[in-house]
Amino acid sequence: MAGTAQLERIAFLGLGIMGGPMAANLVSAGFQVTVWNRTRERAEALVEEHGGDTRIAHTPAQAAASAQLVITMVPDAPQVEEVLFGPDGAAEGLSMIDLAVDMSTIAPTAVRRIADRLRSERGAAFLDAPVTGSRPKAKDGTLTIMVGGEAGDFERARPAFDAMGELVVHVGPQGHGAMVKLINNTLAAVNAAAVAEALVLAQRAGVDVDSLLHVAESGSGDSAMLRLKARPMLEHDLEPLFKLAHMLKDVRHCLEEARALGVGTPVAERAAELYAQADERGLGNADFAGIIEVAEGLRPANS
Amino acid sequence: MAGTAQLERIAFLGLGIMGGPMAANLVSAGFQVTVWNRTRERAEALVEEHGGDTRIAHTPAQAAASAQLVITMVPDAPQVEEVLFGPDGAAEGLSMIDLAVDMSTIAPTAVRRIADRLRSERGAAFLDAPVTGSRPKAKDGTLTIMVGGEAGDFERARPAFDAMGELVVHVGPQGHGAMVKLINNTLAAVNAAAVAEALVLAQRAGVDVDSLLHVAESGSGDSAMLRLKARPMLEHDLEPLFKLAHMLKDVRHCLEEARALGVGTPVAERAAELYAQADERGLGNADFAGIIEVAEGLRPANS
Repeated sequence: MAGTAQLERIAFLGLGIMGGPMAANLVSAGFQVTVWNRTRERAEALVEEHGGDTRIAHTPAQAAASAQLVITMVPDAPQVEEVLFGPDGAAEGLSMIDLAVDMSTIAPTAVRRIADRLRSERGAAFLDAPVTGSRPKAKDGTLTIMVGGEAGDFERARPAFDAMGELVVHVGPQGHGAMVKLINNTLAAVNAAAVAEALVLAQRAGVDVDSLLHVAESGSGDSAMLRLKARPMLEHDLEPLFKLAHMLKDVRHCLEEARALGVGTPVAERAAELYAQADERGLGNADFAGIIEVAEGLRPANS
Repeated sequence: MAGTAQLERIAFLGLGIMGGPMAANLVSAGFQVTVWNRTRERAEALVEEHGGDTRIAHTPAQAAASAQLVITMVPDAPQVEEVLFGPDGAAEGLSMIDLAVDMSTIAPTAVRRIADRLRSERGAAFLDAPVTGSRPKAKDGTLTIMVGGEAGDFERARPAFDAMGELVVHVGPQGHGAMVKLINNTLAAVNAAAVAEALVLAQRAGVDVDSLLHVAESGSGDSAMLRLKARPMLEHDLEPLFKLAHMLKDVRHCLEEARALGVGTPVAERAAELYAQADERGLGNADFAGIIEVAEGLRPANS
């Protein structure tokens, strides 16, 4: 695309829990969106529900063929690299593409690797633009989007971001969007693990949990996780708004970055072990509130 | 005091960081307050600043002599027991007292021990009514007060609570005020440790910390501790609003209760180790934001 051309045509690759409603908001905002998904049914459901100018592509390459902006929203870096650089990948022979944006959450090192490859092989620019806020915010177009990359590229993609997000922040150079996201999610993961431990203790102590939540939400124990996850934890309502396996992945990426930088994060490491236990128990596809089921089985270290 | 007599005369024992402004608010609300403090200077400063009907007692027993309600606000259970049952203690020979309220944070087991002793030796009732909110909220009279004990006793003390707190909740029987407080503070301690780890990682990764805070406060990484302690941590402003040694004490009480109940709390245990390290380093009298200084020195476990 020409650097100053108005953004009209977007390829959206990956229509999962988050990607589906995000693409729908681009359609609603009037963009001409071409979608691709590994399982075509999701793409068809999107077109049926949201219609508009939406087209379904058979491959990432086809989706990207006429797009000015390619957005990837898939589980992790291997999938981003597959849809960009694999057979029929979006980057294949597509000289028109000069801006690719990954909105998945991948490691900062993967961001830099993908950015380098797009630049050297295609002359294309790349932004890492992960989001926070789970499916309800994806539906409402009220996600937080944290963007790493060149300021000019950020401005070009901004109309698309504005259609999907409420708080859109250019946080720094390539990889920093990912890093901010990973740190945010690690905070969330630790806070949610603390909530799970607290709820189990409160219940065993016979404490009135409503009073506890009332007090904690009004004071120093408050957190977004307390407000969002305490009730689902108590009710064991594990319908996935954000899958536990994805949370574990994000925390692991964060801790890998920390280790690479020589930074110790023992509290987050301990929380990560609990999410790993939950994943091993088959809770990976449940909401990460499923951590409560691990907390319920914990015994004191020296007992 | 007669059970239905209007509450007018209060003995307030312990004028520390929190007790001082709490007693001042009782004075402002028109109660006749007799104060006692281990070091008399603080009592004199209170009278000089807030005047009113305030009197200074030489001993807890003297303070309690004409009071309808005795409030203790001291570091921990041994001090509560000392001011109540020690030489010249408030409970000594004071048949008028039929309601004592501890607003310190002590262990639920200590609450039950003190309550039993007051009942059997004095026929007096007892409430555990710990507070959350640090010195600024103590000054503003906007503390959260969580009260354990009999409903009738709670109602008798309520006018005093209302003068010191904004959210006053009767959470259950004796000991449950303490338990709710300990769980709340343990949530805060874990969340603050997570913030400290996150800030150190962000700085080492070269991430723009303002952007990180902006994003995290708007999303899943948000917590009361992020809002209250991130800036002091970054600026190493460790003026004590809540002393690290007191936070460590509360977390330890909480973890002891958890162990006694057979509940495992590994994330909180790991956070407690960091606060213990900070305390060993001499940060006990600093604000618990001092945990940042431990976080800055942490290295990855396997490096």
